[in-house]
Amino acid sequence: MLLCDIGNTSFHFLDENEDYKEDVKTFDPTSVKKDVYYICVEPNIRKTLKELVNWIDISEKIDMSKYYNTMGIDRIVACEAVQNAVVVDAGSAITVDVVKNSIFQGGFIYPGSRAMNLTYKNISSALDYKFNYDLDTTKLPKNSQDALSYGYLKLLYSEVVSYKLPIILTGGDAFLFKNIFKEAEINERLIFEGMKKLIETTA
Amino acid sequence: MLLCDIGNTSFHFLDENEDYKEDVKTFDPTSVKKDVYYICVEPNIRKTLKELVNWIDISEKIDMSKYYNTMGIDRIVACEAVQNAVVVDAGSAITVDVVKNSIFQGGFIYPGSRAMNLTYKNISSALDYKFNYDLDTTKLPKNSQDALSYGYLKLLYSEVVSYKLPIILTGGDAFLFKNIFKEAEINERLIFEGMKKLIETTA
Repeated sequence: MLLCDIGNTSFHFLDENEDYKEDVKTFDPTSVKKDVYYICVEPNIRKTLKELVNWIDISEKIDMSKYYNTMGIDRIVACEAVQNAVVVDAGSAITVDVVKNSIFQGGFIYPGSRAMNLTYKNISSALDYKFNYDLDTTKLPKNSQDALSYGYLKLLYSEVVSYKLPIILTGGDAFLFKNIFKEAEINERLIFEGMKKLIETTA
Repeated sequence: MLLCDIGNTSFHFLDENEDYKEDVKTFDPTSVKKDVYYICVEPNIRKTLKELVNWIDISEKIDMSKYYNTMGIDRIVACEAVQNAVVVDAGSAITVDVVKNSIFQGGFIYPGSRAMNLTYKNISSALDYKFNYDLDTTKLPKNSQDALSYGYLKLLYSEVVSYKLPIILTGGDAFLFKNIFKEAEINERLIFEGMKKLIETTA
């Protein structure tokens, strides 16, 4: 089975057990001849794929009444993969979604690390520090780098652990955030797991 | 007694009970003939004021061993004003400082509302929402505007209340944040109170 998670920058394929990425700028979807199950957050690409019979949009298999209209399809499919968990998808934005007994409880959106770094820097050159991912989240900071890192990382951490559910980290920055979320499990293929589940339960 | 808190954009004066602001770009400090006790975060202005005998820098009266080197003088003076409190100074950045029994415990820095709005917008046009200051912080969001507002406001709120101390809101956005921090006291003259205290105890 060939799966594809299409974001703003890449086609992320999973072919049985092997995953690989293709650049959205150069990849030609007509070059794939097999059936591909996909989700896509990019409206123009979605339009193109609608014309191709072997590209099958999984989003149509989802009971959308469990979610909300403007919620990203990648967040929804990640939620479909879990029964009881907080899903932290750390990319350009960080989405945090809570699922209890397979029911979506709600979620929130926080800036990704690159965006937040820029934010501080743009407020003042005095706030131009890299985040400290070895931050001690149990201590109030007494230096500038930790004061920013705490503002960004500890506030997120406290919120996520407050749900008292297993934490699943996914997305490009999952390994970076694992330093703060020590108890979290990393699952880089969570979206693919959600896609498979949707295909199986609606087959 | 004439006090002045000098930021990046204005000279903020308190003359007995009346306060007023002057633009840093146009204001001439030699036009003041009385003694002025001041703090100043702007290095160039501080250099100019050092030459004027009637401008008295209060920062020299502070026991800096209680704080840290790169900590803003405005944060320090606000801490000097309180005995037991969390001071939330909501401006272009939001600084949160904890004081227990008149001792600074540490603090953190978070982006101000304008900066954070831009951050979300720059990540994706799909995240271009104004924050909802009437947000119900007890419920996980199920719409985009609240998902962003929760990420920004609720995470800050949870951290600040976790210290179990009286909350004092100050800075230009104090009234805006009062909608979220309903239990907080607003004190727009906190820095002036800290300045007075320093002048009196070291007189």
